[in-house]
Amino acid sequence: MKKEDVLRMRECARELFAQAHIVITEDESVNVEVSDMGLGRIDQVGLELITYVNTDRCCAKELALAPGQICPEHRHPPFGDNPGKEETFRCRYGVVYLYVEGEETLERKVVPPQEDEEWYTAKHEIVLYPGQQYTLFPNTRHWFAAGAEGAVVSEFSTHSNDESDIFTDPRIIRSPSV
Amino acid sequence: MKKEDVLRMRECARELFAQAHIVITEDESVNVEVSDMGLGRIDQVGLELITYVNTDRCCAKELALAPGQICPEHRHPPFGDNPGKEETFRCRYGVVYLYVEGEETLERKVVPPQEDEEWYTAKHEIVLYPGQQYTLFPNTRHWFAAGAEGAVVSEFSTHSNDESDIFTDPRIIRSPSV
Repeated sequence: MKKEDVLRMRECARELFAQAHIVITEDESVNVEVSDMGLGRIDQVGLELITYVNTDRCCAKELALAPGQICPEHRHPPFGDNPGKEETFRCRYGVVYLYVEGEETLERKVVPPQEDEEWYTAKHEIVLYPGQQYTLFPNTRHWFAAGAEGAVVSEFSTHSNDESDIFTDPRIIRSPSV
Repeated sequence: MKKEDVLRMRECARELFAQAHIVITEDESVNVEVSDMGLGRIDQVGLELITYVNTDRCCAKELALAPGQICPEHRHPPFGDNPGKEETFRCRYGVVYLYVEGEETLERKVVPPQEDEEWYTAKHEIVLYPGQQYTLFPNTRHWFAAGAEGAVVSEFSTHSNDESDIFTDPRIIRSPSV
């Protein structure tokens, strides 16, 4: 991932948090996590986030998505004694289009990038406006994208263990080097 | 608890959420939980909140405290196989004065109500401004109060089981009837 993309998307995330009136510390601001998922097309596919807390038992993050940006399909499998990560997404700003396993929604709002299409299998659409939320149970394939204004989403979950996530697209690297 | 106090404090909480730019649904708005802790002095001691999600594994709430309002001292003990509730408080608006077990802070900002003084034993002060947070591990005695503008606090935690909370003041009823 290019350093300049990291800096640019960090600034984008900071602007989205400001628009959502979410106060972050200086330390959080300079360390916003940015991932292009190893695909090198961060404006199209990627994610920006702050992890507020992540203990063995629970986790909270603030996610930012640039306008139209997609967090690609993945699931949180069981590991050891842990049944896998359970997470609730609550939209705080903008619109989020969330796609989960289940009955296919016809005429969906977001079309995955053409070159990645085979790696987007979840086709049940959930639209979240500010104040709306959805809880995903472990091991459910899902992906999500922001509307035209970008989006800010609070994630409330059990312990987060990014390295155990299984992305449908085998080319994806969750934490690419910069 | 008087119905009129519930309605008045619900409106106060809605105003605080609005000032914090936190969007809530109509359903959440009309159902803000209000507790005077059974003491009948809600402007002084009590809490207003919305529970966004509370599964067996994790929980997220948005707490509102009226100006100067105190959530009285309590702890979250182990129950069954569960080591007890762990929680992170993140201040979103106003100022929160949090008191936990540990080294006594001299010249503390908040003085408990004189008539309840014996039930406030935690004297280590933590001051949280917007964007600042603190994680409490299970079974730690704690209480907290808002500054002069009131406060909004996000709580990220493991499963919440209010009926198992142990309040230091034996007169307290967490969910008083209205």
